[in-house]
Amino acid sequence: MEKIRLRVESGICEIYFGGGWESLLSRLCYPGNTFIITDSNVNSLYKDKFPDFPVLVVEAGEKSKSFQMTSELIVRLAGLGADRNSLLVGIGGGMVSDLTGLVASLFMRGIDCAFVSTTLLAQVDAGIGGKNGVNAGGIKNIAGTFRQPEFVICDPLFLSTLPLNEYRSGLGEVVKYGLIGNRDIFLRLEERYVSGSSPENDFCESVIPECIKIKTAIVEMDEKEGGKRRLLNLGHTAGHAIEAATGLPHGVAVAHGIAFAALVSEEMGYLSYDERERIEKLLEQMDLLPPLDVAEGKISGLVFLDKKRAMKDISFVFLKGIGEAVIEKVPLEVINGWLKKKGY
Amino acid sequence: MEKIRLRVESGICEIYFGGGWESLLSRLCYPGNTFIITDSNVNSLYKDKFPDFPVLVVEAGEKSKSFQMTSELIVRLAGLGADRNSLLVGIGGGMVSDLTGLVASLFMRGIDCAFVSTTLLAQVDAGIGGKNGVNAGGIKNIAGTFRQPEFVICDPLFLSTLPLNEYRSGLGEVVKYGLIGNRDIFLRLEERYVSGSSPENDFCESVIPECIKIKTAIVEMDEKEGGKRRLLNLGHTAGHAIEAATGLPHGVAVAHGIAFAALVSEEMGYLSYDERERIEKLLEQMDLLPPLDVAEGKISGLVFLDKKRAMKDISFVFLKGIGEAVIEKVPLEVINGWLKKKGY
Repeated sequence: MEKIRLRVESGICEIYFGGGWESLLSRLCYPGNTFIITDSNVNSLYKDKFPDFPVLVVEAGEKSKSFQMTSELIVRLAGLGADRNSLLVGIGGGMVSDLTGLVASLFMRGIDCAFVSTTLLAQVDAGIGGKNGVNAGGIKNIAGTFRQPEFVICDPLFLSTLPLNEYRSGLGEVVKYGLIGNRDIFLRLEERYVSGSSPENDFCESVIPECIKIKTAIVEMDEKEGGKRRLLNLGHTAGHAIEAATGLPHGVAVAHGIAFAALVSEEMGYLSYDERERIEKLLEQMDLLPPLDVAEGKISGLVFLDKKRAMKDISFVFLKGIGEAVIEKVPLEVINGWLKKKGY
Repeated sequence: MEKIRLRVESGICEIYFGGGWESLLSRLCYPGNTFIITDSNVNSLYKDKFPDFPVLVVEAGEKSKSFQMTSELIVRLAGLGADRNSLLVGIGGGMVSDLTGLVASLFMRGIDCAFVSTTLLAQVDAGIGGKNGVNAGGIKNIAGTFRQPEFVICDPLFLSTLPLNEYRSGLGEVVKYGLIGNRDIFLRLEERYVSGSSPENDFCESVIPECIKIKTAIVEMDEKEGGKRRLLNLGHTAGHAIEAATGLPHGVAVAHGIAFAALVSEEMGYLSYDERERIEKLLEQMDLLPPLDVAEGKISGLVFLDKKRAMKDISFVFLKGIGEAVIEKVPLEVINGWLKKKGY
């Protein structure tokens, strides 16, 4: 078991890689009651393994990330006797950690929380860094807080029950980490998926903690996303709109967004033709670029809708090479032009 | 105009007493857009005085303190082009500041807010100290955050349009401040309402900043209500239940709760018979103890319901004299016994 520490002004979050259920049990010596929040899928698969605490099950899927569900969970917790010393443990993927983090931020003006991340996406990305949120009025994560969980447990054992499309979705974010902060991850992905020369049985065991370390380093520099943390949004400008337009899993939509960012990075002269080709090839070989069945103009329309509240330049993440990214302010119309050129 | 500064770990809040609309205008040099949140009553009375920014009006009354309204306001703000640099100004009483504070805490994971407090209750209490919240499942303030506004403007000019019962409600909290932290306030209230010897035309002008100073001093010692801040809950254990059972204005219900706290403080030997009598007499002379038309057992039932989530001792604020209070853990059954004895 490996321990990675995330240290920010508001506190310290311990991230445990491996250790599974035993690791969770050993960390539940809390003065108050503990409550588990999970989704219907994870509950079906793992309820027998849960520690013996009250379990609040929410329907799996993005729809549960709502104010309505936040309110319901808070009222149920009160009814079950939760108080200011209680701990909420979210067991699941990013939806569960987003919802658990927000409920913990608000219940009686803030109680502790922790996550057991059961998807690759949550282990490398969503469960780390203390951003939570719900959707409202069709806008993703429009409301939330920054709140670090007390601890996070990431164990690849959960990935054995993960549907392939969910696993692939997590890989989209793994590619992102390779591109923004660790060229070696990219090279290993190439070996694995392009040249097929290295089967690497313990691929997850080594790549997940690498991704977590990149994320914790960035979050420690900029917890509230005033600057550098925006690097983590590589591929997300177009990605969010593609996700909304197509219903593709988050990480697959982000992979399309990464390909788009690589393309405009090349147009801007930041990225070479060869590098852009390598990135696209890797994403294709990983099955991360399925054809998008969406009417021309829909994606650019959504980007515009999503971003117009800023009403000026937006921060776009460009690639300057494989393993190096930069954030630059770009007028919304310029991005819109690029999207239209791409047929988005 | 007087300025009182509240300084806590999370930041500084400037509280301006007096100065009115000019004071507000001079503080709106913000890089982002400003949005006003107000209620239907305040909007009718003062909309012509509002600075020229988009105004979001919510229905006056406690019902608007809900997740539903929080979500609606967030979606409307997004539609109006609010972004991370925006400022929300809540103009109104405690409901407006509670709602504005929570919306500001959550919108895009947190934006700045400020309050213009238009009721006596909000000026001396609800608008100061950074606690916000909404009700859910019939539980008052079950969800919220601690978040200091950037500034608060309290001007007695607003009190000229305040209905008498709202003014009286604020006075209930003023009595509280006299009892927990400033005996002189209590004595002046006695002079004014019991002996009638001092009309004090500028009573509000002098008592409001005194109350604000007591509150800021307590909040600076204990922002997150882990200890001393609980002193501010004098009269609130029974008061909240009385408010829920009778629909009396908050401060009037709290006044009843203060009389109850004085009674049990006397029973515990903390408060003399004479002091308890003086407190009751003052509250009666201020019209703060109207007879409660409520079935026996209802109030104790509500206290039990409200507090059972803690499931153990609760922190009760006792009076040790006029101007001195202490917090002690008391088993819930003991409090229940006292409530029943009183016919609550």
